[in-house]
Amino acid sequence: MRILGIDPGLQTTGFGLVDVDGQKLAYVASGTIRTTHLPLGDLPGRIKVLYDGIREVVERYGPQAATVEIVFVNVNPQSTLLLGQARGACLTALVSRDLPVAEYTALQMKKAVVGTGRAAKSQVQEMVMRLLKLPGLPGPDAADALGMAITHAHAGASLARLAESTELSRRTHAMFRNGRSM
Amino acid sequence: MRILGIDPGLQTTGFGLVDVDGQKLAYVASGTIRTTHLPLGDLPGRIKVLYDGIREVVERYGPQAATVEIVFVNVNPQSTLLLGQARGACLTALVSRDLPVAEYTALQMKKAVVGTGRAAKSQVQEMVMRLLKLPGLPGPDAADALGMAITHAHAGASLARLAESTELSRRTHAMFRNGRSM
Repeated sequence: MRILGIDPGLQTTGFGLVDVDGQKLAYVASGTIRTTHLPLGDLPGRIKVLYDGIREVVERYGPQAATVEIVFVNVNPQSTLLLGQARGACLTALVSRDLPVAEYTALQMKKAVVGTGRAAKSQVQEMVMRLLKLPGLPGPDAADALGMAITHAHAGASLARLAESTELSRRTHAMFRNGRSM
Repeated sequence: MRILGIDPGLQTTGFGLVDVDGQKLAYVASGTIRTTHLPLGDLPGRIKVLYDGIREVVERYGPQAATVEIVFVNVNPQSTLLLGQARGACLTALVSRDLPVAEYTALQMKKAVVGTGRAAKSQVQEMVMRLLKLPGLPGPDAADALGMAITHAHAGASLARLAESTELSRRTHAMFRNGRSM
């Protein structure tokens, strides 16, 4: 399965694609979509750049699933509103191609990729480089986007294992957990 | 020229279409796109309903221009973020069809339609009904959307008059203004 991760932003939106086969992860592509060549006030124009950019990525690489980082309220409410609209454009571009979209927070992504939700951006870059065997550090936006794709790959693997486990093995797991908690 | 006005919202998005020919306005259609049949948490699904709904309106009625209400920061920052994403989906649906999009605040719309920025929602409904000779009051979301289309029609008419005015007439206007200001 090929997964597209998106780190949404009005100025810069990161994207990253990862192929997942069981436990194996393989890097496909990553990059950023920039709207900084347009005037700050041209919101419709910048929204169109994001939409066209994501549609192009989807057409070129043909992912089967997508995931978009859940954004948070900013100190500046006006920035929150702009970020919301950028994320809305990203979601729209994905659902317009009928891609299933999963949503994770940056905390969930950092836990899945680095092991701790308090990881710094540089630690995410470092771990993404190692997990995908990249020749160098990816940029911070692309790293976050690749991290989102990796998070979804892990979540998918967990769900698959759960689906495969029989009633008996689930009971065994439960017993094991009980044993450990004593 | 046919103008599509949009009053964006995550639960309910109003739309309204108006034909403008010089000073004459004619009602074309209006309505609401609802996402309330989907679970609150299914943001990608609701975004898709908005995108599909607006694309369908654009295909059916073929507007040449569009306008989307500028939304404001809510008391609840989480609501601001959701509203931003809904507005982002509306903008995306319009620019994906290469429609030029103008943006006005509710204040500008109320001034253009009712004459005062402090007008109540019911006054907007009343004036939209009168200006477009509707047989009854439009719903509040549809009225706001039609009000946005009317605002853009007025703005377009003002710009057209400005473009038509000759150098001489502009000077005459200036003298008239100077005369009044004495």
